[in-house]
Amino acid sequence: MKILLTVSYDGTNYHGWQRQNDKVTVAGELEKYLEKIYKEKIKIIGASRTDAGVHALDQKASFTVKSSNIPVDKLKLVLNRLLPLDIRIIKSEEVSSEFHPILHSQSKTYRYTIFNGDYDNPLHRLYSVYVKNKLDFDAMVKASHEFEGTHDFVGFCATGSSQKNTVRTIYSTKMYRQGDFIYFEITGNGFLYNMVRTIVGTLIDVGSGKTLPEDISNIIKSKNRKLSSKTVQAKGLTLLKVYF
Amino acid sequence: MKILLTVSYDGTNYHGWQRQNDKVTVAGELEKYLEKIYKEKIKIIGASRTDAGVHALDQKASFTVKSSNIPVDKLKLVLNRLLPLDIRIIKSEEVSSEFHPILHSQSKTYRYTIFNGDYDNPLHRLYSVYVKNKLDFDAMVKASHEFEGTHDFVGFCATGSSQKNTVRTIYSTKMYRQGDFIYFEITGNGFLYNMVRTIVGTLIDVGSGKTLPEDISNIIKSKNRKLSSKTVQAKGLTLLKVYF
Repeated sequence: MKILLTVSYDGTNYHGWQRQNDKVTVAGELEKYLEKIYKEKIKIIGASRTDAGVHALDQKASFTVKSSNIPVDKLKLVLNRLLPLDIRIIKSEEVSSEFHPILHSQSKTYRYTIFNGDYDNPLHRLYSVYVKNKLDFDAMVKASHEFEGTHDFVGFCATGSSQKNTVRTIYSTKMYRQGDFIYFEITGNGFLYNMVRTIVGTLIDVGSGKTLPEDISNIIKSKNRKLSSKTVQAKGLTLLKVYF
Repeated sequence: MKILLTVSYDGTNYHGWQRQNDKVTVAGELEKYLEKIYKEKIKIIGASRTDAGVHALDQKASFTVKSSNIPVDKLKLVLNRLLPLDIRIIKSEEVSSEFHPILHSQSKTYRYTIFNGDYDNPLHRLYSVYVKNKLDFDAMVKASHEFEGTHDFVGFCATGSSQKNTVRTIYSTKMYRQGDFIYFEITGNGFLYNMVRTIVGTLIDVGSGKTLPEDISNIIKSKNRKLSSKTVQAKGLTLLKVYF
């Protein structure tokens, strides 16, 4: 049977989602406890392979077991008793054996959090990036919409990445403020390696006056990684939602 | 000369403010780096001896040095380069040699954060306490005002505490919501050991329907620790402000 988990985690202390032999990862922790519960080898597949330090509120991950001796909706409780508090299972449910969390995901939403307060408040340091200079929010909003639509995002992808098809469609972007926080949400059919973090770096350059909102379109069209801005830190990034 | 620091810290990884020989504390870290800078023994005095796990946004702490070879307002920058990121200096200034952060503090404001969302979101776990059952906010607001005024708070003090005068004046309380968060702010001329956290425990019992808002006044008057509720976790508590 195939089981789908909805997982929320604080990525601070993990080397990302994907299992690595010598490092603590979110999928690795989940597999470890699932193997304890089911006493068989478990291979978990996540909808998004979040990088080291990236958080998630609604990651989806599936795995196959021969049979479950506990009701599948109760697996959530059993896992939460075993898992560290920085990984929580929100839901556990049985899905069709055909279901695949990567192949069947239609789109994903990520949120990036910028803290633009007077000083680098230690209570916000784990889940946002601190920008000291006051950012021009309106310019950032204007620039953010330029990323919407279907583009070749090769200029916003980590160099050396092996992804062949670098065309992605961004369905929507949303930028909003709450107090000293600036939030950027982006929904698309897929994201290249480091793409969201490079887009945010470019938006911060717009907010700082280094790049003009009108230049974004040409930066995208240039397909030149040297024209986009530096990749911002992972800790400000959260996978918000996976849509199937 | 006497120097006053305004200090902000995430208490998660510290055994409280006060220096302890064998444990990492906030004052201990500050003294360590100040001694590196000034090459003399430093004894720092904080306005509030926050407990292990308690945070602060505006702690005030003073110390005396023979002389400062760096401009006092720049000490902040020098310290911030040395300190870990979970302790930040907001301001460094010279004060009168008469100044004493405990004796001269008129009042303090603490904030307690309750997360009342659908599940124990790992991104909020370090700075709030999670309460699963939906709390009756209006009842909590009503109950919170009962703590205002001058009372003998011995029933809200950790048993075994050696404090002799247990009368304190609460100048104001404020309870407000933002999304799934409930915040409680309390300003008083002083607080007994665990007093804020026991008041919050009692307010959560009111929000859960276990205690009625009308009972608070009698619970205070009883001076009986057994009638107040359990002390909630330190991690939800933040020292917001010290007034001189």
